[in-house]
Amino acid sequence: MTGTVHHGGMTATTGLPRPVLDDSVRLTDRGVHILDRRCFPAREEWVLAADAHEVAEAIRGMVTQSSGPLFAAAAGLALTGRQVAGRPVDEARATLAAAGQALTAARPTNNHVRDAVTAVLTSPDVTGAASAAELAEAVQVAAAGVAAEYRARSAALGAATVRLLPAGARVLTHCWMDTYLVELVRAAAAAGTRYTWIATETRPYLQGARLTAHTLAEMGQDVTLVTDGMVAAALAPGSALGPVDALVTAADRVTMDGHVINKVGTLGHAVAAAAFDVPFLALVLAPDPQAPTASDVVVEERDGLEVLSVLGARSASPLVERGWYPAFDVTRPRWVTSIVTDRGPFPPDRVAEYHRDGASSGPR
Amino acid sequence: MTGTVHHGGMTATTGLPRPVLDDSVRLTDRGVHILDRRCFPAREEWVLAADAHEVAEAIRGMVTQSSGPLFAAAAGLALTGRQVAGRPVDEARATLAAAGQALTAARPTNNHVRDAVTAVLTSPDVTGAASAAELAEAVQVAAAGVAAEYRARSAALGAATVRLLPAGARVLTHCWMDTYLVELVRAAAAAGTRYTWIATETRPYLQGARLTAHTLAEMGQDVTLVTDGMVAAALAPGSALGPVDALVTAADRVTMDGHVINKVGTLGHAVAAAAFDVPFLALVLAPDPQAPTASDVVVEERDGLEVLSVLGARSASPLVERGWYPAFDVTRPRWVTSIVTDRGPFPPDRVAEYHRDGASSGPR
Repeated sequence: MTGTVHHGGMTATTGLPRPVLDDSVRLTDRGVHILDRRCFPAREEWVLAADAHEVAEAIRGMVTQSSGPLFAAAAGLALTGRQVAGRPVDEARATLAAAGQALTAARPTNNHVRDAVTAVLTSPDVTGAASAAELAEAVQVAAAGVAAEYRARSAALGAATVRLLPAGARVLTHCWMDTYLVELVRAAAAAGTRYTWIATETRPYLQGARLTAHTLAEMGQDVTLVTDGMVAAALAPGSALGPVDALVTAADRVTMDGHVINKVGTLGHAVAAAAFDVPFLALVLAPDPQAPTASDVVVEERDGLEVLSVLGARSASPLVERGWYPAFDVTRPRWVTSIVTDRGPFPPDRVAEYHRDGASSGPR
Repeated sequence: MTGTVHHGGMTATTGLPRPVLDDSVRLTDRGVHILDRRCFPAREEWVLAADAHEVAEAIRGMVTQSSGPLFAAAAGLALTGRQVAGRPVDEARATLAAAGQALTAARPTNNHVRDAVTAVLTSPDVTGAASAAELAEAVQVAAAGVAAEYRARSAALGAATVRLLPAGARVLTHCWMDTYLVELVRAAAAAGTRYTWIATETRPYLQGARLTAHTLAEMGQDVTLVTDGMVAAALAPGSALGPVDALVTAADRVTMDGHVINKVGTLGHAVAAAAFDVPFLALVLAPDPQAPTASDVVVEERDGLEVLSVLGARSASPLVERGWYPAFDVTRPRWVTSIVTDRGPFPPDRVAEYHRDGASSGPR
């Protein structure tokens, strides 16, 4: 790959244009280029991370989020491997471990990065490498494998979701499902259908207004934007936007007993969907065996001051000194219709059965 | 009153500072000055309406909203009376009627303006005036009376609400309760207590972030701002902001069978409050006898493009072409704990009893 950042093209199987955000982390000779989601699509700017610690810093600073950190972490490890290729193997391994720790610690709630780092650092060719050069090569291969597997599993998840929705469904989504969204749209197209979308703007970062709505539009989808407070009105009987066939969101984490941890707002939307008998599908590759229940998940609280402004401009009264910004909320199983995984849907109280056969198809 | 627009001072009974928004419509020699709530408090600008039709235009354009249109309509009628004082009485009366119609038609959902106009134009001194000069004087007196009565009834409503809340309650409020809010804070102070407030920002107009949070801060209250999507998380057990003692909002309209029509978002917050056993108090002077049920209320749909920007700056992707903006939503009685009126609280399914004694204490 060269240092030039470009993109484009169509996806062969569906004929749909490839959205910019579907290719938003790129490893080049200079480091890891990460599309800055804080200002996209108003501006297309790329942050260059020169080492894994700068990648971690970019993740913490919300340069990228959702699926982005997984691809960024994989690229960060591959970069680290390259950077330590000339060093003693033990030192190289220690540097890689430290990089993995920094990447994992960047944000606490989503477990993609933790799983990706674990998958790369425990892969047989990595643990068995006899030299730093071998290690670098093995990390590069494992990192590429993790990224490819994440895409493939997201595609399986998308296909499983399509099987649950009526053809031409009207879907309300919150925040930004990233790779899951892109693969869901592709899977629908592959199945010969197309959905009508309602996207929430998702304050305070406006991931829905910026990333989701933009990506759907890039892919030629019909999308209507609403504010976060309009979801119940959209789901209620008689809504001008209805009837809505399903509330569909990603889950940053699903516990083994069926709690859904996702972008703040999901809880209220799920409760409203239940009140109006609209199914709520929560999409995740797999539930997290390290999180038996919700108390095992750290819900990140970000700086409350972020609530007082919009895209950097003050929106609240200058007299207001305090906001509250829990980045995620926890939805109890009773408000979740189905947890859709790459192995198909599960009722939330039976999602632990995902792991019953013990054969993991990828990082958990 | 002079043409100078100024304000300030303390309320004698409570010692609380008087907020700017508590005195945001002023009749002077030049016309009706209306504080522009679209940019307040970032900027304190006043729109000058030279006649009642310009007042109606300001109401339609959201220069003022909530309680503001009532005060603006009363002032607009008084101004019209003054402007027709030298004309034949029949012509003066026709001009007044046209002004009343324009004011009433400005926005369809809230009934304050309709009731204020009716109260002024049907008051005995107005209907019995023998000359345009008498008419002008009678309209002036009746308009002042309507405004004063609205304040007095709002104070009674505030006092009734205080009786339902525990001392030092933690209250979550949505949008902007205007006079009801100011009188509730005063009533709490008069009762020797003070609440802790959580205010939603209330997209797309940010009435909560700008008007509610500002006014509460002006009155020395403790206020934390949240986005509209954070309400369920704030109400849920274990919330860092909780436990919340009550969800308290105004109602733009309450039907005789207990439906609450209020700023969009209220429905979702009410459903979440019910799910987490937090009482929802909807404040209104009186239910509307002209609205037996929700289908009798016109819910205003505003331009969906307003959802695509924040304070005039584009927030959504440039590719997004469509938003949806229902200004209000309808909350069924099952999700309302109590409708609090100037005559005290009613269970929603018994709110029609408000009018049982037949003796109206003011415009209905």
